[in-house]
Amino acid sequence: MNFQFYSPTKIFFGKGEENNAGKIISEYGYKKILLHYGKNSIKASGLYDKVVKSLKDNNIDFVELGGVEANPKISLVREGVKLCKAENVEMVLSVGGGSVIDSGKAIACGTKVDFDPWQFSMGAEKPEEALPVGVILTISAAGSEMSPSCVISNPETKVKNGFTSDLVRPRFAIENPELTYSVSKFQTACGVVDIMMHTLERYLSDETDLDLTAEFCEGLLRNVIKYGKIAVDDPTNYKARSELMISAGFSHNNMMEMGSKHYFTVHKLEHQLSGLYDEVAHGAGLSVLFFGWAKYVYKSLPEKFASLARNVMGVDEPDDLKAAEAGLDRLKEYFVSLGMPVTLKELRVGEINIEEIADRITKSDTAKVIGFVPLDKKAVFEIYKSVE
Amino acid sequence: MNFQFYSPTKIFFGKGEENNAGKIISEYGYKKILLHYGKNSIKASGLYDKVVKSLKDNNIDFVELGGVEANPKISLVREGVKLCKAENVEMVLSVGGGSVIDSGKAIACGTKVDFDPWQFSMGAEKPEEALPVGVILTISAAGSEMSPSCVISNPETKVKNGFTSDLVRPRFAIENPELTYSVSKFQTACGVVDIMMHTLERYLSDETDLDLTAEFCEGLLRNVIKYGKIAVDDPTNYKARSELMISAGFSHNNMMEMGSKHYFTVHKLEHQLSGLYDEVAHGAGLSVLFFGWAKYVYKSLPEKFASLARNVMGVDEPDDLKAAEAGLDRLKEYFVSLGMPVTLKELRVGEINIEEIADRITKSDTAKVIGFVPLDKKAVFEIYKSVE
Repeated sequence: MNFQFYSPTKIFFGKGEENNAGKIISEYGYKKILLHYGKNSIKASGLYDKVVKSLKDNNIDFVELGGVEANPKISLVREGVKLCKAENVEMVLSVGGGSVIDSGKAIACGTKVDFDPWQFSMGAEKPEEALPVGVILTISAAGSEMSPSCVISNPETKVKNGFTSDLVRPRFAIENPELTYSVSKFQTACGVVDIMMHTLERYLSDETDLDLTAEFCEGLLRNVIKYGKIAVDDPTNYKARSELMISAGFSHNNMMEMGSKHYFTVHKLEHQLSGLYDEVAHGAGLSVLFFGWAKYVYKSLPEKFASLARNVMGVDEPDDLKAAEAGLDRLKEYFVSLGMPVTLKELRVGEINIEEIADRITKSDTAKVIGFVPLDKKAVFEIYKSVE
Repeated sequence: MNFQFYSPTKIFFGKGEENNAGKIISEYGYKKILLHYGKNSIKASGLYDKVVKSLKDNNIDFVELGGVEANPKISLVREGVKLCKAENVEMVLSVGGGSVIDSGKAIACGTKVDFDPWQFSMGAEKPEEALPVGVILTISAAGSEMSPSCVISNPETKVKNGFTSDLVRPRFAIENPELTYSVSKFQTACGVVDIMMHTLERYLSDETDLDLTAEFCEGLLRNVIKYGKIAVDDPTNYKARSELMISAGFSHNNMMEMGSKHYFTVHKLEHQLSGLYDEVAHGAGLSVLFFGWAKYVYKSLPEKFASLARNVMGVDEPDDLKAAEAGLDRLKEYFVSLGMPVTLKELRVGEINIEEIADRITKSDTAKVIGFVPLDKKAVFEIYKSVE
């Protein structure tokens, strides 16, 4: 299978690197930026002040837009676009995690067009130009800091959709593991699941041509499993936070899919869940649905699930099917040990309308549940039912 | 340890991709290029005609400069610079292996300055601008297709020196494994050693902070060991050629050094050997000197050499020192199985003046033999003697 690999994001990794933000931006030659962030946590932690000082020290002019929520909303994106157009902003600096980065990416594309940026998320338009995006990362999870993807939610239609474009791959990402010390145990665990899922959704495929890619996937998964638990138990462990932070980007920069077909089935199963139930954390939703999906499909791909079991989960069992089952059991135990939910009930969002979710997933043009086992509405319903 | 990671090269991988060269270049917007290559092999194989057709089909104007030799010479670089300046060339397309790519990189830098490009290799000047470089790869070895480094030889002074700059990282690399089918068994084996050495010189270090990097290194090494032997035995094995080709770039794009100190001691030991004895293939020189160096230093870093033995060479031995020794023995057997030399004698270049080499290595300012065990002239002499 022919493929392309492209991962131009420059990573500045380590303690104190956030203080170089202004210097880095001025080396790129940008003079006016949008400082984009979420709730007040970056103000409470002192990060906001450090970034502002660094921008001022380097004569970078900026306007700011905070308030990005989990499952970032198109309404705030529209506000950002208006601001960037009015203020002739030259680049977007997202300070935060996946939601803030994705919101910044959507703003970067929207600023260059006259139509509603929601058109990008709906797949009706493709970006042909975008403001450059830079990142100061505060959560190890989504991998958006190196990825070409961008997922935005529309609360009016309760739709959550993604688009991908090389134009939104961040120019640079500043990654200081200490900035993630304050991430809660729950959010850290959600991040671990998200990072693993970005690799698992590429690794567990019916077409994987390159063993090098499999080696990279398995190595990354082993490492995230090891250090994910340590980070959850010991939030200020620099080494564990470092391993998670660098893994997040590499899990989603397309290296893990070289020479392979990927479907992102579990992500597609999950997007409508957290789209409809805003309280559902993406990682928690993935944790539940992965096992529903895996149980439904592993018999169609026993060798790959067996490799996962043997090379990542330490299962020693010659029979592929038995190994696959044991591997999934161990993985579930691991997620549980992180405090992650593995049933819908544990998400604690009350009654979940599985019928409606299955309907939305299989009706939406941009969220077809393809995969090496294509799923129809009945299959999606069954998967959801199996993890009720 | 803080670090940066940057690898912007876009890879176009797979069968027939060379026919897209013109289209790719025109999408970057370049209209006039230097077509740079080595001896007649690309004409004999038909690759030259395909590339020229693709350029013409896309209205890309070009001038050409062939004749790059192994250990690429500064004289040809000077010629290329003259040509690019006279013809207002906008980018350099290197069609070949490491030598052609490095020669192209040096030309790309030289075209932007008024002084002799040898100044870059001597470390007297640093590039501040360069023509963009693109690659069509025909040998899996040097990894120059994704790397910032460039090694040039000066036959007058018998000096071979390298410089690194992000400016010479190729914009794109077209990699069709079939183009390497015609690489001889010997050159394929030299490539395998070169690829492995780029990772080993980063992996075998006294400061390696990230386990993720170690996982990537070990995975790549296992894979190259496996498919290197297959490619040597079965030159038209597409899978084996694919694994080697993609590994070559990732071995040298700086991913294998994230969070670690690297010295490139073996490369520094070797450069003066192939600098003085032009007939010595770089990979063959590395194969010999690696074992001299490893025997000299492994006791200072037993854990790392033991990890190599256990995680890459399959050694099952609890004692670190014993494991390290067994691992080196297995690695030597592997190199021998590829037909690689492991003594200077096997290089068949007659009497080698070890005294002179040791002198040059330890006197040259740009080739100091640093490492976790710094080497003085006596040490270099001993290492060379130990592999006589």
